[in-house]
Amino acid sequence: MDSYLIQVKNGAGTRPSILDVRINGTGKGKVRKPHWAVRASEMSKKTFNPIRTIVDSMKVEANPKKPMISLSIGDPTVFGNLPTADEVTQAMKDALESGNYNGYAPSVGYQSCREAVAAYYSCPEAPLETQDVILASGCSQAIEMALAVLANPGQNILVPRPGFSLYKTLALSLGIEVKFYNLLPEKSWEIDLKQLESLVDEKTACLIVNNPSNTCGSVFSKGHLQKILAVASRQCIPILADEIYGDMVFSECKYEPIATLSTNVPILSCSGLAKRWLVPGWRMGWILVHDRRDIFGNEIRDGLVRLSQRILGPCAVVQGALRHILHRTPSEFYHNTLSFLKVWSPKEETWVGGETVKSETPIESERLENNQECFEYPNFFRVVITVPEEMMMEACRRIQQFCEQHYQCGDGIQDLECDK
Amino acid sequence: MDSYLIQVKNGAGTRPSILDVRINGTGKGKVRKPHWAVRASEMSKKTFNPIRTIVDSMKVEANPKKPMISLSIGDPTVFGNLPTADEVTQAMKDALESGNYNGYAPSVGYQSCREAVAAYYSCPEAPLETQDVILASGCSQAIEMALAVLANPGQNILVPRPGFSLYKTLALSLGIEVKFYNLLPEKSWEIDLKQLESLVDEKTACLIVNNPSNTCGSVFSKGHLQKILAVASRQCIPILADEIYGDMVFSECKYEPIATLSTNVPILSCSGLAKRWLVPGWRMGWILVHDRRDIFGNEIRDGLVRLSQRILGPCAVVQGALRHILHRTPSEFYHNTLSFLKVWSPKEETWVGGETVKSETPIESERLENNQECFEYPNFFRVVITVPEEMMMEACRRIQQFCEQHYQCGDGIQDLECDK
Repeated sequence: MDSYLIQVKNGAGTRPSILDVRINGTGKGKVRKPHWAVRASEMSKKTFNPIRTIVDSMKVEANPKKPMISLSIGDPTVFGNLPTADEVTQAMKDALESGNYNGYAPSVGYQSCREAVAAYYSCPEAPLETQDVILASGCSQAIEMALAVLANPGQNILVPRPGFSLYKTLALSLGIEVKFYNLLPEKSWEIDLKQLESLVDEKTACLIVNNPSNTCGSVFSKGHLQKILAVASRQCIPILADEIYGDMVFSECKYEPIATLSTNVPILSCSGLAKRWLVPGWRMGWILVHDRRDIFGNEIRDGLVRLSQRILGPCAVVQGALRHILHRTPSEFYHNTLSFLKVWSPKEETWVGGETVKSETPIESERLENNQECFEYPNFFRVVITVPEEMMMEACRRIQQFCEQHYQCGDGIQDLECDK
Repeated sequence: MDSYLIQVKNGAGTRPSILDVRINGTGKGKVRKPHWAVRASEMSKKTFNPIRTIVDSMKVEANPKKPMISLSIGDPTVFGNLPTADEVTQAMKDALESGNYNGYAPSVGYQSCREAVAAYYSCPEAPLETQDVILASGCSQAIEMALAVLANPGQNILVPRPGFSLYKTLALSLGIEVKFYNLLPEKSWEIDLKQLESLVDEKTACLIVNNPSNTCGSVFSKGHLQKILAVASRQCIPILADEIYGDMVFSECKYEPIATLSTNVPILSCSGLAKRWLVPGWRMGWILVHDRRDIFGNEIRDGLVRLSQRILGPCAVVQGALRHILHRTPSEFYHNTLSFLKVWSPKEETWVGGETVKSETPIESERLENNQECFEYPNFFRVVITVPEEMMMEACRRIQQFCEQHYQCGDGIQDLECDK
């Protein structure tokens, strides 16, 4: 005896009423579903991107006294002060005008583009060939595919705190657990290696290493990267390296791609055009497969190819432009971008620490908390430094004023040092 | 007492040997993993796109007597005989030159683009507003998000047979079961409605309706669509409508968007620029949310927004061009495309049926079987009809010749009718 809800139309134009009736079971074990109950999937509920949630839905009530200065999103193009290179735009125009890039590319990208990326990053310490490159719809999809191929639901990944929120967003979306390892502000945001290693268990599928660091702006030294690799090697954990800010470091630092230092740890390095070429909206990313000991073998490579076939790769026109973008962008362009950013980043850190900065207005407080939640780091908030000079000056003045107004020491005495 | 494998370095340059040792358990339940065993995830193994697997990896041995004519992939741009409209290319150039579309767009797409798509498709029977449109990286990602929001792992979806293979690819990737409903060749590939309804059970999450049909080339009549809606309404199953070939029908047929005929069934309609504007490589797709009875409610909409935040939407330059593409493409362009296709498709079906066509050469046989597997329909294979005229003529001759050579009736007598 099964219970059913049956809809009965009871008149034109009115909604159907619902009767509860009982019918003998058919013996086939089928239960009909005669009422509407469409629920969003568990996956969609588990998927939560705090940065995009804030940025996409931000409706800020205008303060009539002050025009808003947005320091919230790492998009260098917002203010028009950091355009991409003319050569980059020209490469896109050429690709478009050729008419050769309107059709489907292979899901992993055109052979010629993969070859160009491989040649661009290949070096004696970490050689790359065409088949070591998988193109993706932005670095986000590169990270998504890398995570999806390395970890099963129920496994865990090791993720930096504070750090880029997308790792957690994607992992939870895929049913993968996140374990946070600590970055140490007093050691220029190096990894707490002991605490990192203590997190490893039999369900650990990969270690995410983000260098240069998104949010911290720190650059790991060769020695520190070697220690990270030693942990991965000891624990036999592959590395997912998010190196989207690769080469965007000031002259006193040196960026070392982690794969150039590894002798045995297999690495999926994710990057793309977004940051260095200042075109995050073009959604061009890639995965570089470094596996000189053949630990990934064909299985991980085949898995990446299969996963790329779900949505068929990045825009073909951008692919058509890629070789020229990599080859023709003049070195002054990269230099000029860094010079601009340097004005605002005399130290590596772009974080503003505030032990007990409190806000008395709910809207400001909420935004501050959102910012903290994004990066899993209470009592700090992140600001971006791509804002035009005079706006950045004004933003610094406002932050200082805010801190001076709201800062409270444990004993209630106002005392604040601002690094002007 | 736990068992461990421990790596021991036994000399420079040689691979570490592996010793099997036993260590007392720590009591913390942690098992270390001191050997490399990186396996591809279950998801990556479950993900299989037969079309892309064939097309991306196709290495055909050249027949010295015959140049190859590829009839395998529905990409209208391959032969250069079906270029997109000049207005479409110009819209992209304008977007590029403006410099306004290099940055991150909202994950669901720019407000202005969503508005343009809503206005383009809105009609009194199925009105659409800006918030009813979610942009995606191609129609493939639109379908992926629609499936991912409607179904949980373990649930099932109803999928046409023969039909586009991506539905199964994406469903299995997400752990969703696929149940095939039959299309009836003797009824112009209409749905076997009785068999369709018999498949519904308590785990059925959605019904995929693909009209005009990819692979069959059929167009459902208004009456048939109403019967499909009646099944969905009776069973309270939402519809995922794949309408990427919408409006690409010959003058004797009329394409009816299924949402214009629905009074109560909630529908996610997926489409994009790929087919009608002949730019599949640009990866611009969208979901239209039709939910006039508020059955999806906010939950499905919010779910789609969250899912879009995983990889942050389609290329911003294509978004920047979208409004002009929709408004400025001249009607002759659409007309000319259809005129070309019509030459090769005097009937609606583009399928070649062959009850007992057998191949004696393994390579041909394998390709034939791959083609059949793609579309879940043994004894038929699909050809595409976007090939230039003289090549299509030659292809038809070859197919005819092949059939004449290999056709065997049940009683062994050669007898073949070709529809020339």
